[in-house]
Amino acid sequence: MIGMVSETAQALREADNFLILTHRRPDGDTTGCAGALCRGLRQLGKTAYILENEGLTGRYKPLAQPCYAPEGFVPDCVVTTDIADYGLLTENALPYRDRIGVVIDHHRSNALRAPVRLVCAEAGACAEVVLKVLDELKVELTQEIAECLYIGLSTDTGCFRFSNTTPDTLRAAARCLELGIDGGEINRHLFEVKSWPRFQMERILFDTMEFFMDGKIALALIRHMDIERTGATMDDLDSIASLTRQVEGVQVGITIIENKDFSCKISVRTTKEVDASAVCAKCGGGGHLRAGGVSLSCGLVESRARILQAVKDVYAESELA
Amino acid sequence: MIGMVSETAQALREADNFLILTHRRPDGDTTGCAGALCRGLRQLGKTAYILENEGLTGRYKPLAQPCYAPEGFVPDCVVTTDIADYGLLTENALPYRDRIGVVIDHHRSNALRAPVRLVCAEAGACAEVVLKVLDELKVELTQEIAECLYIGLSTDTGCFRFSNTTPDTLRAAARCLELGIDGGEINRHLFEVKSWPRFQMERILFDTMEFFMDGKIALALIRHMDIERTGATMDDLDSIASLTRQVEGVQVGITIIENKDFSCKISVRTTKEVDASAVCAKCGGGGHLRAGGVSLSCGLVESRARILQAVKDVYAESELA
Repeated sequence: MIGMVSETAQALREADNFLILTHRRPDGDTTGCAGALCRGLRQLGKTAYILENEGLTGRYKPLAQPCYAPEGFVPDCVVTTDIADYGLLTENALPYRDRIGVVIDHHRSNALRAPVRLVCAEAGACAEVVLKVLDELKVELTQEIAECLYIGLSTDTGCFRFSNTTPDTLRAAARCLELGIDGGEINRHLFEVKSWPRFQMERILFDTMEFFMDGKIALALIRHMDIERTGATMDDLDSIASLTRQVEGVQVGITIIENKDFSCKISVRTTKEVDASAVCAKCGGGGHLRAGGVSLSCGLVESRARILQAVKDVYAESELA
Repeated sequence: MIGMVSETAQALREADNFLILTHRRPDGDTTGCAGALCRGLRQLGKTAYILENEGLTGRYKPLAQPCYAPEGFVPDCVVTTDIADYGLLTENALPYRDRIGVVIDHHRSNALRAPVRLVCAEAGACAEVVLKVLDELKVELTQEIAECLYIGLSTDTGCFRFSNTTPDTLRAAARCLELGIDGGEINRHLFEVKSWPRFQMERILFDTMEFFMDGKIALALIRHMDIERTGATMDDLDSIASLTRQVEGVQVGITIIENKDFSCKISVRTTKEVDASAVCAKCGGGGHLRAGGVSLSCGLVESRARILQAVKDVYAESELA
């Protein structure tokens, strides 16, 4: 952990007018953290607001929208939650880029500069870090604050399913449930309910899925006309690439999404046997061990052929190695 | 809570040769509980076995199979874990039906008779109750025991997603993770990986899904020939009915599965707006508020018509009420 909880709490105690920033394409964690921190600071008698984020989608609106800063608000302390890099600041946050006073995050790679930085890379969600700060400030956890934190915790860990979930994540969530929030209903909306366009996208993904190399490779195609026809947004396509990897025996799941101009965006998801970034690198892309991506200017047919060849090459090399 | 943890621990301390029973169609909770308890008792120097359960499927085998009782083993104490009723005893457990010494469960409706009964209806999983007993017995949580308990906790709560998840469930899971088990990998296999037949069944379910009443009703059909063709087992069809309810706006999700003799098994899943048992009762079935079922001797076409009419009738009545 970089920075100390006590030092962070002290910095927050010393200021009076807070503006909290969330990251581009805001998720449950950045929004939940901002919502919880804003409400916690207000409980201490401070003036606190969240900077409007135009990317905020339906399900997260109640956490942040009621706390949006009025026009002309002048903060004496700017706080970021879950923002790892300057490139993730929203357009309207750029005027504050050199005036960030407190950074609260859980990304090891955090690159923001500020007098006070609390970066806890061990935490599954930034909400765990915010909870530590609120505890240090002796903020009483209200149901509203608990709901904000719980949404941060559950969305960043796939509802406590992924390997980034720690004992602390679960204990933080336990405290939130104790305040009487309806975890089951919250999770149903976050993880179970599918929008109509999302449902149709998944249907198409399943229908187009092809298998290669004895089922080790799964490949699905989404044409631009399908996206237009169903009215699917980026939000509806979020994390759809991971579905290809769910079939038993699949080690490499490939999703090709056709853009409006017929170029293609390819997402590769792998199990531990294959390095996704190595596959994507062969086509000029990159990424992490289990998730990579590449954009190709060619159409669906050629994109499909090139990425399949890349996967086969990576397999061939690993057998030679 | 019925019964006391201390009394249960005392009963276990006093015996030496244990046989642990699991329920029919064993799930992660009954199997995980038996596996954890058996290993815990052995740690105390006891002789403990699990009675073979022929319904045990692949993913749960490592928890129980290594502990199966040898032929001719004579226990002085029979323990049940997560078994709510006599009807849930396996065939080979029937000789022990009147000799159950300790019942450990979390079903409010538990109907087993025994000198010692510990039934904690507040627990999300029976594994929470077993953990309390192991703590009372001062059993050291090994990684093996933690894995058994964790699988019980996560499978019975939809990986901590459902409303039966309590603060205690999450704290118990936190302790298991602390012992170094790989929660992410366990959950990937339990909740993400789909068998080939399951994948094909979901594809068929999605493809056949029809919508009625402005999308309030979703209905999917699975023909027997599809089950035969894909080689799907009961395990592959497990909880597939809940998928129909995942689409935004759907209040009643209906899944009709055709049997070999062309009769039909109908599953109804609802959101809070509609009583699933009321829908099924109209066709001669029953169930709970949000999950019901009915078997009809007629074929797919007539079954579809009858259950649709039943749903529409329930809506009409509730509007009149």
